[in-house]
Amino acid sequence: MSSSTRAGSAGYDMSIIFSPQGKLYQVEYAFKAIKSGGLTSIGVCGKDTVVVATQKKIPDKLIDPKSITSIYKITDYVGCVQTGIVPDSKSQVSKAIEIAASFHNKFGYHIPPNVLAKRIADLAQLNTQHASARPLGVCMILIGIDEELGPQLFKIDPAGVFCGYKACSAGEKEQEATNFLEKKFKSISSKDSNNNNNNNSKLSRDETIQLAISTLQNVLGADLKASDIEIGICSTDNIKFTLLPEDEIDTQLTKLAERD
Amino acid sequence: MSSSTRAGSAGYDMSIIFSPQGKLYQVEYAFKAIKSGGLTSIGVCGKDTVVVATQKKIPDKLIDPKSITSIYKITDYVGCVQTGIVPDSKSQVSKAIEIAASFHNKFGYHIPPNVLAKRIADLAQLNTQHASARPLGVCMILIGIDEELGPQLFKIDPAGVFCGYKACSAGEKEQEATNFLEKKFKSISSKDSNNNNNNNSKLSRDETIQLAISTLQNVLGADLKASDIEIGICSTDNIKFTLLPEDEIDTQLTKLAERD
Amino acid sequence: MSSSTRAGSAGYDMSIIFSPQGKLYQVEYAFKAIKSGGLTSIGVCGKDTVVVATQKKIPDKLIDPKSITSIYKITDYVGCVQTGIVPDSKSQVSKAIEIAASFHNKFGYHIPPNVLAKRIADLAQLNTQHASARPLGVCMILIGIDEELGPQLFKIDPAGVFCGYKACSAGEKEQEATNFLEKKFKSISSKDSNNNNNNNSKLSRDETIQLAISTLQNVLGADLKASDIEIGICSTDNIKFTLLPEDEIDTQLTKLAERD
Amino acid sequence: MSSSTRAGSAGYDMSIIFSPQGKLYQVEYAFKAIKSGGLTSIGVCGKDTVVVATQKKIPDKLIDPKSITSIYKITDYVGCVQTGIVPDSKSQVSKAIEIAASFHNKFGYHIPPNVLAKRIADLAQLNTQHASARPLGVCMILIGIDEELGPQLFKIDPAGVFCGYKACSAGEKEQEATNFLEKKFKSISSKDSNNNNNNNSKLSRDETIQLAISTLQNVLGADLKASDIEIGICSTDNIKFTLLPEDEIDTQLTKLAERD
Amino acid sequence: MSSSTRAGSAGYDMSIIFSPQGKLYQVEYAFKAIKSGGLTSIGVCGKDTVVVATQKKIPDKLIDPKSITSIYKITDYVGCVQTGIVPDSKSQVSKAIEIAASFHNKFGYHIPPNVLAKRIADLAQLNTQHASARPLGVCMILIGIDEELGPQLFKIDPAGVFCGYKACSAGEKEQEATNFLEKKFKSISSKDSNNNNNNNSKLSRDETIQLAISTLQNVLGADLKASDIEIGICSTDNIKFTLLPEDEIDTQLTKLAERD
Amino acid sequence: MSSSTRAGSAGYDMSIIFSPQGKLYQVEYAFKAIKSGGLTSIGVCGKDTVVVATQKKIPDKLIDPKSITSIYKITDYVGCVQTGIVPDSKSQVSKAIEIAASFHNKFGYHIPPNVLAKRIADLAQLNTQHASARPLGVCMILIGIDEELGPQLFKIDPAGVFCGYKACSAGEKEQEATNFLEKKFKSISSKDSNNNNNNNSKLSRDETIQLAISTLQNVLGADLKASDIEIGICSTDNIKFTLLPEDEIDTQLTKLAERD
Amino acid sequence: MSSSTRAGSAGYDMSIIFSPQGKLYQVEYAFKAIKSGGLTSIGVCGKDTVVVATQKKIPDKLIDPKSITSIYKITDYVGCVQTGIVPDSKSQVSKAIEIAASFHNKFGYHIPPNVLAKRIADLAQLNTQHASARPLGVCMILIGIDEELGPQLFKIDPAGVFCGYKACSAGEKEQEATNFLEKKFKSISSKDSNNNNNNNSKLSRDETIQLAISTLQNVLGADLKASDIEIGICSTDNIKFTLLPEDEIDTQLTKLAERD
Repeated sequence: MSSSTRAGSAGYDMSIIFSPQGKLYQVEYAFKAIKSGGLTSIGVCGKDTVVVATQKKIPDKLIDPKSITSIYKITDYVGCVQTGIVPDSKSQVSKAIEIAASFHNKFGYHIPPNVLAKRIADLAQLNTQHASARPLGVCMILIGIDEELGPQLFKIDPAGVFCGYKACSAGEKEQEATNFLEKKFKSISSKDSNNNNNNNSKLSRDETIQLAISTLQNVLGADLKASDIEIGICSTDNIKFTLLPEDEIDTQLTKLAERD
Repeated sequence: MSSSTRAGSAGYDMSIIFSPQGKLYQVEYAFKAIKSGGLTSIGVCGKDTVVVATQKKIPDKLIDPKSITSIYKITDYVGCVQTGIVPDSKSQVSKAIEIAASFHNKFGYHIPPNVLAKRIADLAQLNTQHASARPLGVCMILIGIDEELGPQLFKIDPAGVFCGYKACSAGEKEQEATNFLEKKFKSISSKDSNNNNNNNSKLSRDETIQLAISTLQNVLGADLKASDIEIGICSTDNIKFTLLPEDEIDTQLTKLAERD
Repeated sequence: MSSSTRAGSAGYDMSIIFSPQGKLYQVEYAFKAIKSGGLTSIGVCGKDTVVVATQKKIPDKLIDPKSITSIYKITDYVGCVQTGIVPDSKSQVSKAIEIAASFHNKFGYHIPPNVLAKRIADLAQLNTQHASARPLGVCMILIGIDEELGPQLFKIDPAGVFCGYKACSAGEKEQEATNFLEKKFKSISSKDSNNNNNNNSKLSRDETIQLAISTLQNVLGADLKASDIEIGICSTDNIKFTLLPEDEIDTQLTKLAERD
Repeated sequence: MSSSTRAGSAGYDMSIIFSPQGKLYQVEYAFKAIKSGGLTSIGVCGKDTVVVATQKKIPDKLIDPKSITSIYKITDYVGCVQTGIVPDSKSQVSKAIEIAASFHNKFGYHIPPNVLAKRIADLAQLNTQHASARPLGVCMILIGIDEELGPQLFKIDPAGVFCGYKACSAGEKEQEATNFLEKKFKSISSKDSNNNNNNNSKLSRDETIQLAISTLQNVLGADLKASDIEIGICSTDNIKFTLLPEDEIDTQLTKLAERD
Repeated sequence: MSSSTRAGSAGYDMSIIFSPQGKLYQVEYAFKAIKSGGLTSIGVCGKDTVVVATQKKIPDKLIDPKSITSIYKITDYVGCVQTGIVPDSKSQVSKAIEIAASFHNKFGYHIPPNVLAKRIADLAQLNTQHASARPLGVCMILIGIDEELGPQLFKIDPAGVFCGYKACSAGEKEQEATNFLEKKFKSISSKDSNNNNNNNSKLSRDETIQLAISTLQNVLGADLKASDIEIGICSTDNIKFTLLPEDEIDTQLTKLAERD
Repeated sequence: MSSSTRAGSAGYDMSIIFSPQGKLYQVEYAFKAIKSGGLTSIGVCGKDTVVVATQKKIPDKLIDPKSITSIYKITDYVGCVQTGIVPDSKSQVSKAIEIAASFHNKFGYHIPPNVLAKRIADLAQLNTQHASARPLGVCMILIGIDEELGPQLFKIDPAGVFCGYKACSAGEKEQEATNFLEKKFKSISSKDSNNNNNNNSKLSRDETIQLAISTLQNVLGADLKASDIEIGICSTDNIKFTLLPEDEIDTQLTKLAERD
Repeated sequence: MSSSTRAGSAGYDMSIIFSPQGKLYQVEYAFKAIKSGGLTSIGVCGKDTVVVATQKKIPDKLIDPKSITSIYKITDYVGCVQTGIVPDSKSQVSKAIEIAASFHNKFGYHIPPNVLAKRIADLAQLNTQHASARPLGVCMILIGIDEELGPQLFKIDPAGVFCGYKACSAGEKEQEATNFLEKKFKSISSKDSNNNNNNNSKLSRDETIQLAISTLQNVLGADLKASDIEIGICSTDNIKFTLLPEDEIDTQLTKLAERD
């Protein structure tokens, strides 16, 4: 670390307090933890479908590949991809499951994706305001089908920010993936200029999955095999959150290769 | 940071204690956090109408524009625009909703805007006196129609100060917006000199909305489109807090352009 | 800050501990916070009347003048002027209202002014002895009519000191105002030498109000308009704490001008 | 503060811990706070009478003289003079009143002076052992009539030390007053050599009061008027703690002047 | 420690906070504690069998060899090998036993190995997020037979990461052991290329045990005697967690020697 | 304080933690506090009698001599002499009284001296292990008659060490007094060589008292008067703890003078 | 302390956190506290007998020798020798007694020695993980007869490590004593090579006691008298924990002298 960096923070980064510039350094360092995790995740929302996709990188050939996943089911109808510190990821998912279960108990119906995203973000905000714990070093991309609004895609970061997205990315290559996705959506929009501000893009199920995959391939600069990719999906046909089976990923990879 | 700045604070800014000059640095840094958020918000109170307006800046083209808002409904009759750190904004709104709901439960009628503003300010003050948490990096402009007093406009800052206003501003261009508004209100007052100290200005619904919009346009130095602006409104005709639909914003923009 | 100032405090000012000279620096800095607030308040106790007066300085022309006040009603019969950090002022008033309400519940009669002053001072003292919170940066001047003792005027400071006064001042020009008041009371006493030590001065209602106003005018070195002044009053005729209406302030200003 | 002083304490004075010399610096600084308060108090125990006396210095001519007192009634039968930080004084008196009331509730008779003194001292000791609060910057001289032992005079200091005395002093001129009192008691003893070690000196009511007054006059080097002195008294004739009325103080001053 | 190392951490390693690089130093130091414990442990999962193996190094010839073990039974059906700080190991095992017992009480059946592993990892994560305690300096390799999934092997580290493995290692020679195991599994896979990603390797009971032993022998560079090795085992034939008796270890050592 | 002393402690003395040499500095400084109190106390255990003796130094001639004592009754049958910080002494005695009362309530008989000594020592140990409070700066010498063991003499120090003694000392001249007592006991033992290791020395009541007095006289290098000495005593004849009346002290002083 | 030592620890030794090398310095300093206590203890386990032995060093000739002991009874059937800081020793023994009593209450039979040792070690581990208290500066050697396993010998250290032993040592000369014991056990084993790994050595009662004594004599380099030694013993004949009477120690010393 250069001494000028130190001079810039001067102790404000050791706890949850404002720096003279109004910054919260611990939050910024949590973002660094996410970037340095080495993975990139993608979320894409289509007309009837919403997917999360991420690399499946087995750090060690001896690991049971089934036990390495960044994609988690929260309820039968809501799932997410977690990018960042793995134990923080699991801790956040555990809390999300608790929130969802308690909501179902209390109100008798499943928690809508946006309500769940808001609650998770509220918990993340607390870790940026109170001195008792550090922020979580993880970024959640959450998907589900809202009964009224259709496919939903949210991103929740360590600062406690949550937003709906047409498509988004998190992790090491977040910036490159976002650029790629924006370019793609621009060309889609330009074809379909009447629908400029509509979140529910006109992407079909296949297009949605393939956009997620091609974004991963593009930013990682490598041909990915089906076993290198994890995809979670919800669609209005089947609103249950499911992991795309490896053979379907393979089929989509082939279609994608043919299309190009 | 220059060394002289450091010498000026000398550790008093690391916690909620007085500096030798009687300053609370963490509070001042929270104001910096608000300014550095990059947004400017406006509140204007008219004869029968009160509005909050702010820029709608979508940081990322892929974000679902519906999910980006700085304007929040607290009860059916009270709303606000939040300027500053977004998760702090949402956390403060959540607490405001709780306060309002609990008031309604206890007393059987809706919380008046001024009572709500006072309660939110009291909570903000606690964060400047106790060591358990930092101040919130957010400024709230709250509006509603008081049954007896008519349109009400309040601003609540991280120090816990709350005031009623004829018009006010928060955020990056707060100073410029305030100057613009003062000039406008001066010319209104000079025309209507009998009503010098009356908060309920003589502004009609259209004038109120247009003043909010023209202030934003003036300080941002740019022609704003309807989609770049968010406006929340309450009026004595319709005391419910509502978001102005984009087409009406468009209509007002056209009228404003014609007027000039 | 000069290095010698630092050497003089050497860390004793960062918490509620004694310095080697037996000083509590946080308390002294709280007084600085009061002085630097820019306002001056006056309390004057007459024969049958007691008033608090302060400047009404609207920092921003757009502020609803009604929402800027330094004078607060605590019960129907006790009120105060608060000088210093505004949110601290409101927080202290809130606690005072609670104390008064709880006293009334428990004993079935209104809390006497001196009992209330003592309780508020006790709370202020706690903030100078325990590490959990900083002292409040506010000075309260409290008035009321005691059933037996007649008009009462108390001042409560951040150190937890409270005293009864014939007349007192707080804020930026406290010293100048005190000098002015002493001189005035001296000339009154000299005329009425039999009554030297009696708190209940022989000032009539008009004299009491005018002394408060003329003190403000004198220390601020400016002709004040009725709208620049706030006055709270209790009298044996009408023991309810009321704000003097602007037209009566105007009348008193005229009388004062004529008298001089 | 000289650098050698700092070197001598080296951080041991910032909390309730032992210095390498076995000192508790915060306690010593509390004594400094008492000395720098500017007042001196006296307690004298006679045959049937015990008094506390102190200067009544009105810091500000506008203060209601009745509201400035250093002498407090704790129960109907026990009172004290407090020297040091005024709000700490009142806080300690409040606790003493609580202790006395709770004792009376529990045991059905009034708390004896020595028991009360011990309890107050125990509380003071806690502030020198636990980190939660600073020591109180006040010294209490407590008097009362014990049913069996007669007049009682105790001094309780910030270290938690309490002692019975024939006569004692606290505050700015404590040393000078103590020297004066010792000299006086020596001459009394020499006259009445049989009664050398007996606390209940042979001083009559008048002698007791006059010794307290003359001590004050001597150390302050000034002729005191009745209004400059406060005297609290208990006697076996009237065991209730009462404040000596100003006219009796005047009478005693006259007798004292005549006697000399 | 070189000064550059200090500069790199600069206080971020003294508590559970993020460094500017997004690192949690206390967690990294906990891993150092595990490595410096001097022991290496192995877990291997076969077709019907799963074993944990470790060195049994009696630091002192006088120690009762029976009291030195790194292998612990958690329930009748789940066991583990602990590598790192011994008391931390036992503390973690105690908590695991509690979790398992409470699960059995609540649900009426034995806790599955993967659920137990997750719960232990969740507790470890808490020690990396909250300031109340340091992370545990221990790595757990946990085995059991899942009713549906067959033999299971998990590793849980101080960061709170847990993973399923075909084979894994922990401790001083973790890297060398992992390399050796990977090479072995590669040659197994290459023979049985259809089964590339299947966790349940085709290793028979004897092969499983012998692979664990030969890994230990390889990385320690020494001929191990039966008394130098501890082996815990579960198999689908006998799902109870048992320690392999010394004579069977001896038999396996002989077979291994003959095979080579 | 020399800089080398500082270098030797380097912060380890600011709290209850081990120094690199395994020392607890706060405990050592508590011993310094005891030594610097200026008093010396003696305990001597005879055949049927056990006494504590100490100087009675009235720091101020005006103090009621009766209120200065270092000797405290804990129960009717157990008493002690306290040496060190006076308020700490009283605090410890208060706790001892509570312990004894609670024991009597629970078990229906008086707490034996050794049990009480152990409990007091346990409390003292807590102050050396937990960060919540400093050690007490006081050393207790406790005496009583055990129903079975006869006269008992214990010393409890700030470290929480407690021991039974034939004779012991505490305070400023502890070392000198101990040397003197050892020499005396050696000569007693040499006369009575059969009884070398027996705690219950053969000292008669008079010899016990006189040894305590002569030790004080020896180390203080001054002829002590009866009023300069306090003696607490228990004996098998009268197991109640009593203070030796001044006339008996005088008689013993005379006998002692005659004996020499 | 050399400056390089300081550089090596750099603040990691001021609290229970890991150093960059994964060390817990406070634990290491607790071991230093044990070594610097000046005593050495021995535990030896024979065929039917298990003993703890230690020096009895009376630091002061006036101390009642009966009150100095390092050997404590925990239940009728389990005892220990404590080496290190004496008050920490007693505190740990008190907790052990509580644990044993509570176990007996709950389960209706006496706590087995190994269960008790584990519980004590668990408590010691907590002091190495949580910031609330320092580790205890004491090492416990605990003995007892297990109903099934026969004589048992455990050592529990400040790190929370506990182990069963054939023989062990703690304190100043721990290393020398361990070497001596190892040599002796080696020669025993070589005679009885069939029984190499069996904890229950073939030592008879006399041999067990004499080995403990001769180890002490060897490392202390001095002829010890019976009164210089304390021995606690349990045997299968008499499973109650008893202190060996001085005359039996004497007899064993004589036998030992004759044997050599």
